[in-house]
Amino acid sequence: MTDYRRLRVALLGAGSVGSQVASLLRQHGDELADRAGATLELVGIAVRDVDAPRDVDLPRELLTTDAETLIVGADIVIELMGGIEPAREYLLQAINSGADVVTANKALLATHGPEIFDAADQVGAQVYYEAAAAGAIPIIRPLRDSLAGDRVQRIMGIVNGTTNYILDRMDKEGAEFGDVLADAQALGYAEADPTADIEGYDAAQKAAILASLAFHTAVPLDAVHREGITRIDASMMDAARKAGYVIKLLAVCERMVADGDETISVRVYPALVSREHPLASVHGANNAVFVEAEAAGPLMFYGAGAGGVQTASAVLGDVVSAARRHIAGGVGVGESTRANLPIVPIGHVTTRYQITLEVNDQPGVLATIAGILSDGNVSIATVEQTVIGDDIEGAGTARLVIGTHKAREQDLSDTVDTLAQSGVVEKVASVLRVEGD
Amino acid sequence: MTDYRRLRVALLGAGSVGSQVASLLRQHGDELADRAGATLELVGIAVRDVDAPRDVDLPRELLTTDAETLIVGADIVIELMGGIEPAREYLLQAINSGADVVTANKALLATHGPEIFDAADQVGAQVYYEAAAAGAIPIIRPLRDSLAGDRVQRIMGIVNGTTNYILDRMDKEGAEFGDVLADAQALGYAEADPTADIEGYDAAQKAAILASLAFHTAVPLDAVHREGITRIDASMMDAARKAGYVIKLLAVCERMVADGDETISVRVYPALVSREHPLASVHGANNAVFVEAEAAGPLMFYGAGAGGVQTASAVLGDVVSAARRHIAGGVGVGESTRANLPIVPIGHVTTRYQITLEVNDQPGVLATIAGILSDGNVSIATVEQTVIGDDIEGAGTARLVIGTHKAREQDLSDTVDTLAQSGVVEKVASVLRVEGD
Repeated sequence: MTDYRRLRVALLGAGSVGSQVASLLRQHGDELADRAGATLELVGIAVRDVDAPRDVDLPRELLTTDAETLIVGADIVIELMGGIEPAREYLLQAINSGADVVTANKALLATHGPEIFDAADQVGAQVYYEAAAAGAIPIIRPLRDSLAGDRVQRIMGIVNGTTNYILDRMDKEGAEFGDVLADAQALGYAEADPTADIEGYDAAQKAAILASLAFHTAVPLDAVHREGITRIDASMMDAARKAGYVIKLLAVCERMVADGDETISVRVYPALVSREHPLASVHGANNAVFVEAEAAGPLMFYGAGAGGVQTASAVLGDVVSAARRHIAGGVGVGESTRANLPIVPIGHVTTRYQITLEVNDQPGVLATIAGILSDGNVSIATVEQTVIGDDIEGAGTARLVIGTHKAREQDLSDTVDTLAQSGVVEKVASVLRVEGD
Repeated sequence: MTDYRRLRVALLGAGSVGSQVASLLRQHGDELADRAGATLELVGIAVRDVDAPRDVDLPRELLTTDAETLIVGADIVIELMGGIEPAREYLLQAINSGADVVTANKALLATHGPEIFDAADQVGAQVYYEAAAAGAIPIIRPLRDSLAGDRVQRIMGIVNGTTNYILDRMDKEGAEFGDVLADAQALGYAEADPTADIEGYDAAQKAAILASLAFHTAVPLDAVHREGITRIDASMMDAARKAGYVIKLLAVCERMVADGDETISVRVYPALVSREHPLASVHGANNAVFVEAEAAGPLMFYGAGAGGVQTASAVLGDVVSAARRHIAGGVGVGESTRANLPIVPIGHVTTRYQITLEVNDQPGVLATIAGILSDGNVSIATVEQTVIGDDIEGAGTARLVIGTHKAREQDLSDTVDTLAQSGVVEKVASVLRVEGD
């Protein structure tokens, strides 16, 4: 075996990802050394409780509760603790003591990314975070490096496995949200407290990270418009299916011109996606990121978005990259946020919509509704009217499904309010955005 | 505008990709400078004939026929001339004069890759070639960096747009190969001399590049088993469709254990792919690379595999990466070929097969054939027998479609020879490998 330089690797956290990273580092040590050009010596694993039960056997002598001492003298620090503090503090300590850092902490990067990247810039260190955006799917390097000479126009990502699992089963089985969620929790696809997933918080963090990279702009988490999937019910799924769509929770990052200026929009919400679109074929807990770039055209990256060993793959790729950079020398290349595009609020965004109304089935109703839409600057593309239930005498209730051309979100939202108060609409059954065509 | 350091960029070649690279470099110069942290100054474009007509207007004063002088003093040299010589000579000159190099030249890398990578290693330069493997699809960085901590088990790539276009149309229209090829030539999807595409030479070059990266092993082009698609006819397509398959030209790079040793196999051939497999949905001239890694699981990368402006996107991503490295300092990280796994010949490969035979429809024929297969170590998984034409009297010809379990290629090939000479087989209509399940 070649006699390589030894690099000291400190691991913070031994949960489902961390324990796999530790295990793979030890199992494939020789192979990784050949690839990195350096021996990766795991010098310690910081945990909260050295006696806690773990999925993977880790050598007791590597475990410590003293993260700060472990970080001192490490060449590469892998942060897999999650949460904001003390992860932020430890990462900054690692950077300032000359280590390169690898993290899968999307919450931290989405909230304190600029602080961490600035700290790394100042000392010439590098921050690697391939695992933070879509688990095992390589998307950070493609956006940051491969597409660095192109202009990304739009990203549409299925970046949360739990919600895709739930929506996919609702689509296939015609089941209700609550039932599938309960089942997903029993099967381990959803957590006991599923809020971060089903309310879109997790997807919003990833959207902020992807948009920052794609548009070379610091995107703070609170600039991401976020809606969850809890309002999606079986009837909306059914209607979508009949219209040739599937409902997916999308992270959309889009370059757009607003009032003559180049801007971006970053938003997470459930949207109608044509069954012909590649994203419609992403089933189960899988993730996919669809990228449209000016020169490259459409690209898609598909794979497992979560899972301990899958995410560990992305972490270890970063560790090898960090080791290669240590051997090669030079400073980290830093993050490019120099474009610094303004981020528009959701009200300025234009998309297509599908509005489902229950209306009094009387003469003149359609004309009234069409008038309200027109007054609100919402242009109708398609209308489909069906009588609800057995009442075909004309005096009952009809369902109107209106597809719009691209409309401004604020106009659409105001118009839906006007419709709701118009007296002719009994109920606004659903309003969904249409993405991807 | 920030006052950046200027980097001198020399472009060799102004064909469909080169002219787009020149055009985008000039059009988006400020934006690229912000991302690279350096101004990318296009100092000249080497061409064979400065007066040749071009798709894109290029400033006359940048054009030169003197590549060697242009290379002197360049910080980054982009080689888009294609062919082996003088591209090889110029790249080596650029590396030895201290430049980083960007190339899309798959023929050169597949035949002289090690020489070029070694030269770069010796001076600490870096070779970038994201555009060489699947056009605009970012696949080089994911394999080289993101998956560097994982073990790639298998790559199945649709890496040639022309053949995918032809096979896709044959599948959809039931048309014959020659007719679709002629049409593809008329539409510009295939070249006047289509040999490189339809005989699999182009795909084999890409397979060599992908396998080298994935398995950290120098894979010479002549170690790649290569078959083209010219023998695929409408009846084979039709039979595949009825059996739930589609025929795709695949580049397969596989890690396998042969005689107890870890080895790899690299091969290009038309194969049956289940319609349920993600690769079956890759239509038209698109490309996709399906990667199975031990920890990450299945991943897929999809996009445009060719085209001037699409490929220019990948080239410019490399140029920005090269510029960032120039600014950051340090040496290039080189290629890792330290695993150096043995490459087994095609005879040692095991796959599933589908054998279609026309046989004398007589008692005992199936028993004879089953015996020959069994003697040849080929295990039968499925058999389907149909009478050909109107002859249902039992004295005519029957078609036997035999699906095998995994068999060794050499055994299979010997067995098919035995079948052909057995007297009971009138014709071996087709032998196709089954990949992806």
